[in-house]
Amino acid sequence: MAVIVQKYGGSSVADTEKVMGVARRVVATARQGNQVVVVVSAQGNTTDELIKQAKAISKNPPKREMDMLLATGEQVSIALLAMAIDALGQPVISLTGPQGGIMTDTQHTKARIRMVDGDRIKRELEQGQVVIVAGFQGRTQNGDITTLGRGGSDTTAVAVAAALDADLCEIYTDVDGVYSADPRLVPEARKLAEVDYGEMLELASLGAMILQPRAVEVAAIYGVTLHVRSSFYMDEGTKVKEVDSVEREITVTGVAADENCAKITLAGIPSDVNTLYHIFSALAQAGVNVDMIVQAAASKSTTHLSFTVTREDLAETLSTIERLQADEEWEVLADDNVAKVSIVGAGMMTNPGVAAKMFEALNEADVPVFVVSTSEIKVSCLVPRAFCAEAVRACHRKFELDTAK
Amino acid sequence: MAVIVQKYGGSSVADTEKVMGVARRVVATARQGNQVVVVVSAQGNTTDELIKQAKAISKNPPKREMDMLLATGEQVSIALLAMAIDALGQPVISLTGPQGGIMTDTQHTKARIRMVDGDRIKRELEQGQVVIVAGFQGRTQNGDITTLGRGGSDTTAVAVAAALDADLCEIYTDVDGVYSADPRLVPEARKLAEVDYGEMLELASLGAMILQPRAVEVAAIYGVTLHVRSSFYMDEGTKVKEVDSVEREITVTGVAADENCAKITLAGIPSDVNTLYHIFSALAQAGVNVDMIVQAAASKSTTHLSFTVTREDLAETLSTIERLQADEEWEVLADDNVAKVSIVGAGMMTNPGVAAKMFEALNEADVPVFVVSTSEIKVSCLVPRAFCAEAVRACHRKFELDTAK
Repeated sequence: MAVIVQKYGGSSVADTEKVMGVARRVVATARQGNQVVVVVSAQGNTTDELIKQAKAISKNPPKREMDMLLATGEQVSIALLAMAIDALGQPVISLTGPQGGIMTDTQHTKARIRMVDGDRIKRELEQGQVVIVAGFQGRTQNGDITTLGRGGSDTTAVAVAAALDADLCEIYTDVDGVYSADPRLVPEARKLAEVDYGEMLELASLGAMILQPRAVEVAAIYGVTLHVRSSFYMDEGTKVKEVDSVEREITVTGVAADENCAKITLAGIPSDVNTLYHIFSALAQAGVNVDMIVQAAASKSTTHLSFTVTREDLAETLSTIERLQADEEWEVLADDNVAKVSIVGAGMMTNPGVAAKMFEALNEADVPVFVVSTSEIKVSCLVPRAFCAEAVRACHRKFELDTAK
Repeated sequence: MAVIVQKYGGSSVADTEKVMGVARRVVATARQGNQVVVVVSAQGNTTDELIKQAKAISKNPPKREMDMLLATGEQVSIALLAMAIDALGQPVISLTGPQGGIMTDTQHTKARIRMVDGDRIKRELEQGQVVIVAGFQGRTQNGDITTLGRGGSDTTAVAVAAALDADLCEIYTDVDGVYSADPRLVPEARKLAEVDYGEMLELASLGAMILQPRAVEVAAIYGVTLHVRSSFYMDEGTKVKEVDSVEREITVTGVAADENCAKITLAGIPSDVNTLYHIFSALAQAGVNVDMIVQAAASKSTTHLSFTVTREDLAETLSTIERLQADEEWEVLADDNVAKVSIVGAGMMTNPGVAAKMFEALNEADVPVFVVSTSEIKVSCLVPRAFCAEAVRACHRKFELDTAK
């Protein structure tokens, strides 16, 4: 008897009819003789509606209370889905994140899963029940409700799959797989049959928006094979698993774009490591994730520092810097009119000249480049947001991603 | 330092502005040097909306999952109210029923509070925080979420007040107190300064709808003084407390009407006690609360049995009887076009002729009476629903309840 974890996103359960559709799919899987755990997100734009309600009351609501509020979204979903599955005659029980044993740290609104205590889930599975677990949420040791931040339901699904040693973790979503680029930007983009954890991680964190990066990380650590597929069609999607890179001849797998970034430049700051340490540790304490970082010496004693954060974190970033600089005179420039375009591929590290080829593509398309960063499996360029789509298309063409290899 | 429990109903927190209003009231109470616990219901008609969503998916949703669904209503309220109180600069923390230590039995959708473990609430109060507790909900020993049924937030408030040995339990509502009759039916009805627990119990269970009967019961057991008052005005409301009935000269305190009833008549059933036992134990097992019961012999071996239930329980009642009668031939008549009109007063038991005076009033007003039941402090008559308002007015006039005594 196989253990299968299925995760359905918010758009998959947006209304009554879709909930019924998911229920049929779950029941079909259970009737094939599988033990099924379903992880589900809040319906449609419930989370956004709740945030709007909170903002109407307070500009800066306490994060613990935001979690208390937001956690209701998934709790509604799990109850409704349980009712739909029950109506089809299949024994079922729903569990909130806390009930499902999802234990997290105390960083409200951005909590990380510390461990999954799978006892209750296993007990319910053994009684022949489909078990529905609320995604996106967990509890601290103190019993307080936490949420994992946007996309956290993927992480819940993967963490549960790891805790149960599940045979498969299916991620149902409103796209039918992972593409070589966003098909809305690049019509000739191809669906990929499989991608490596590392590639997916870069694609996800770079804005492919299909899988939450933390989920891919956890899947890689525990060797959970993910299957990203459509909740509306039966087609095979994209498998995310360990792909032996020695066998790979493909250099670049896909092109990703991320419009959710803002660039901050601090001009004339002291060029000592202590200053850098203070800036980035203060930002870390404020819960701001810094992405690209570039530093260029302006003089012997001062330097120019540029880095990027998500657009939501821009206000927090600027107020943190405000506090830090006190009465010193730093020049602070913020630009949230930028986008990050990246080429990703596990075969990249063994192939020289990939970055050069990307710059060539961008140069031919007259795309200005502000900041560059590289890793073993990606090259990212920060460009003006207006040039984002053209940059993606130029790279997709240059690396001939529309033809299967 | 006094401990004050305040309970706000759904209409008191129906929108952002009202939530802010409640927050100001709570903060004012805290700044007078009191330790404040706030119990709050779901906003406006949230609960009805959630029930509608459930019914769209399943005609008979599992009760455990209904509780999972409905509990989100209060969770939204407590989070939003906490944000509003925080925005006014007052330290505050919200707790779900389970977090607040509200332990219940396992009867989902109609659970009863077994005990309140007040440790966490006390700990938070001692840290100078206002503590908000979700009304209407609790947890079983197993960690499952339960709801207490309609109006259960009152019970939560009283049970919390009892557990904390609170000095006062204020019930804020959209009416400004308890009246001698529903002012919509009887314009000359008077606001009562105080009523006895027993009277309130009869008024509440008879449809005055201001306080949940279970809440009054618990208040009576633990001697918690309740103050029922308006959440929109500062006027004194009605105190519900132990009133020494020896001092009471008032015979009848108020007239109550309850339109939420249905009458079932079983004709030609065996006239043995065994049959009665089977019928009412089966209904009890189905969770149906039976109110009035009347039996009249039809022949030596058969009898006519009439009883009333709430209109929501009518379907369950009929299907339970369907199962019971098997292939016997009982005639089953159901009528949900009835209403119960009652006169209530703690002084009644020492005053003979009160029932006779009520029948006189109803007779003068040409109101037919189907069923009568009496207790030490009330007389109830089941009448056609169309005659309900007239019956209330007739009784109010007859007992001269518009003039203070």
